[in-house]
Amino acid sequence: MSYDHRRLGRELGLFDTDPLMGAGLPYWLPDGAVVRHVLEEYVREAERAAGYRHVYSPVLGKRELYEISGHWSHYSEDMFPPMRLGSEEVVLRPSLCPHHALIYRSRSHSYRELPLRIAELGGMYRSEPSGVLGGLTRVRAIQLNDAHIFCTLDQAVEEARAALRLIQRAYDDLGIRAAGYRLSLPSRDGAKYVPDPALWHRATALLEEVLDGFDYQAAEGEAAFYGPKIDVQIADPAGREATLSTVQIDFHQPERFDLHYIGPDGARHRPVMVHRSVIGSVERAVAHLLETHGGAFPLWLAPVQLAVLPVAEDQEQQAADVVRRARAHGIRADLSGPLDGTLGARIRATRFVPYQAVIGEREADGDLVAVRLRDGRRPGAVRVEELVERIAVGDRDRGAELWADA
Amino acid sequence: MSYDHRRLGRELGLFDTDPLMGAGLPYWLPDGAVVRHVLEEYVREAERAAGYRHVYSPVLGKRELYEISGHWSHYSEDMFPPMRLGSEEVVLRPSLCPHHALIYRSRSHSYRELPLRIAELGGMYRSEPSGVLGGLTRVRAIQLNDAHIFCTLDQAVEEARAALRLIQRAYDDLGIRAAGYRLSLPSRDGAKYVPDPALWHRATALLEEVLDGFDYQAAEGEAAFYGPKIDVQIADPAGREATLSTVQIDFHQPERFDLHYIGPDGARHRPVMVHRSVIGSVERAVAHLLETHGGAFPLWLAPVQLAVLPVAEDQEQQAADVVRRARAHGIRADLSGPLDGTLGARIRATRFVPYQAVIGEREADGDLVAVRLRDGRRPGAVRVEELVERIAVGDRDRGAELWADA
Repeated sequence: MSYDHRRLGRELGLFDTDPLMGAGLPYWLPDGAVVRHVLEEYVREAERAAGYRHVYSPVLGKRELYEISGHWSHYSEDMFPPMRLGSEEVVLRPSLCPHHALIYRSRSHSYRELPLRIAELGGMYRSEPSGVLGGLTRVRAIQLNDAHIFCTLDQAVEEARAALRLIQRAYDDLGIRAAGYRLSLPSRDGAKYVPDPALWHRATALLEEVLDGFDYQAAEGEAAFYGPKIDVQIADPAGREATLSTVQIDFHQPERFDLHYIGPDGARHRPVMVHRSVIGSVERAVAHLLETHGGAFPLWLAPVQLAVLPVAEDQEQQAADVVRRARAHGIRADLSGPLDGTLGARIRATRFVPYQAVIGEREADGDLVAVRLRDGRRPGAVRVEELVERIAVGDRDRGAELWADA
Repeated sequence: MSYDHRRLGRELGLFDTDPLMGAGLPYWLPDGAVVRHVLEEYVREAERAAGYRHVYSPVLGKRELYEISGHWSHYSEDMFPPMRLGSEEVVLRPSLCPHHALIYRSRSHSYRELPLRIAELGGMYRSEPSGVLGGLTRVRAIQLNDAHIFCTLDQAVEEARAALRLIQRAYDDLGIRAAGYRLSLPSRDGAKYVPDPALWHRATALLEEVLDGFDYQAAEGEAAFYGPKIDVQIADPAGREATLSTVQIDFHQPERFDLHYIGPDGARHRPVMVHRSVIGSVERAVAHLLETHGGAFPLWLAPVQLAVLPVAEDQEQQAADVVRRARAHGIRADLSGPLDGTLGARIRATRFVPYQAVIGEREADGDLVAVRLRDGRRPGAVRVEELVERIAVGDRDRGAELWADA
């Protein structure tokens, strides 16, 4: 069965658009916002543990900034139009790297601080034509999981490899898989690309070293305008490929922004910039998660983790108590009572929720719940404490198995 | 002693600006980003517990959206200029309420769902003239802690009061206090305000009811263009007042967006919108925290909570181990070793850190650390486990006292 993230997003109430907000500018409804927030916090924590430090930078930059970075001459077709504010001209940014280069440059750095890993979950903007916009995959406002590692030439390959390992670990936790690795190179005619053959040669050689041991394909015409990149490809249920994660080694922007560090010799040296994204844009990642899991998010990402279903009004108080106890353990639990429909209808309506806890007369008397898993299994009547403990542990460990001993 | 948040922000490396990003568009350096993130997560959690549900909405809207909301005719001087994308004209939003009104309107609602509380930490934009811009208090890009409660007329006063209680609890946790409460009314000439006397009268009467029991001052000319509001005022160390938090009862936007809910009678009714912000803008909140605490953030907000200081190289491994153990408990711990300077210089450099743990030869032998608190007290040599436990508990409980039994 093949899933479409737009249909699932509507059905599950995750996101939507409104013509008054504008095309390609989706908003996230409460359940979708939970998924996005949990995902962002996961990435943040994984990056923190891997030695990244986070920043927040504004989504605007002066036109001059993009003239320096090269976006203005190579990428302005895809940028939003500049806005005039008094004597300044600002523009919604097409990427985060120029901001991070400025943040690096704002302080002097010793070789002892390198590799310096700056990360941000931040907005970027693309003026896609309205005809192609839709869902979460073709949008004009993008929430990017981005980072830039400023390092010595000697450190670049290992940093890029570490980024690939971080990507693989995240894919495991998310229950998704890479459809393939791609080495994205410029087109042969060189149009749209920074004209500096030595730069392309050096960066490509390093990325080939990074990919040593990987099965990958080279693709011409898919590079960034400033350098080649490794693209981690994903496939939708119909087999169509798209790029989710990327790793790049960049010699261009350190030149353009005249970045340096002080080496052991006391002299100035040029750092290398490794650009990398673990889950790419949050929009595309959630779209892919929806399609891969058909709406049944892994437990730790599910908007609602436990649906508590009293059979009749008599069990509503008991059910509310179960919800309270589960929430006290950090579990996202919701009550669905008789006002929402028959028990059968409520079980169907919450079929994407990992755990359903049905409470009838018998269960209410014994502080029990009749557990139903979304995969169809029914472990039956268990103590409330046991269910809460299992969900809390599964959430913490990002376990894929809903009931290991059943 | 009087503090200036700009000077402290520079000294502590929390935020900065760059002329290439643009005036009034500060970026947050890693330590500042920690404070902002912890603060945002605190607000999110407090709101969740109070029954709010979060959304994410785009920072852009169509020009028509602001024509409907009334911003275009009453507020466009403060807005960024619109951008043309194909046949659409989009503009950076001056507030979040129109987006939340659209989200409410996207689905039909029964009276049983009310009060419906929609919250967001999101960006909004103001084209302040460049002359007044500076620090975190006069900016062009604002990260607002915002929410809109859609409710019946009967629920509005209690919802507004609950919002004031949420504000008071947050101020307690943040160690800041309200300098006063203000009822902000339109100017007598009525210019700039929505011309609807009945609306102003009704909303003002309700806000007076909300403020019953509070000591407050009325201020003409301080209302929003669409209605009166309660402003929670803060004062800087020089006694200058500014508004941090607000609570508003709004009849205007539900009219303009033709919002409704289905009542018990099966007919359509108009909901009331309560706008409220707990900590106002994240920028202003952090500026105020800096000035109130003189850079010594409450433990739970401190960018670094524990500085581990080996006396000499011999204790560096032991110190690294203490950092690892503290981090495993979720504590933000950093090592500052002999390469960073003399012990005295390192103690001075980390004087804003709540806990300093000095490790000399004697401490290293006994798995101890010599504890120094930033308030000058020195509990002396304690077991590493005890220190870690005390910090973890203080962080979790948002305790103001660094060493209760000393």
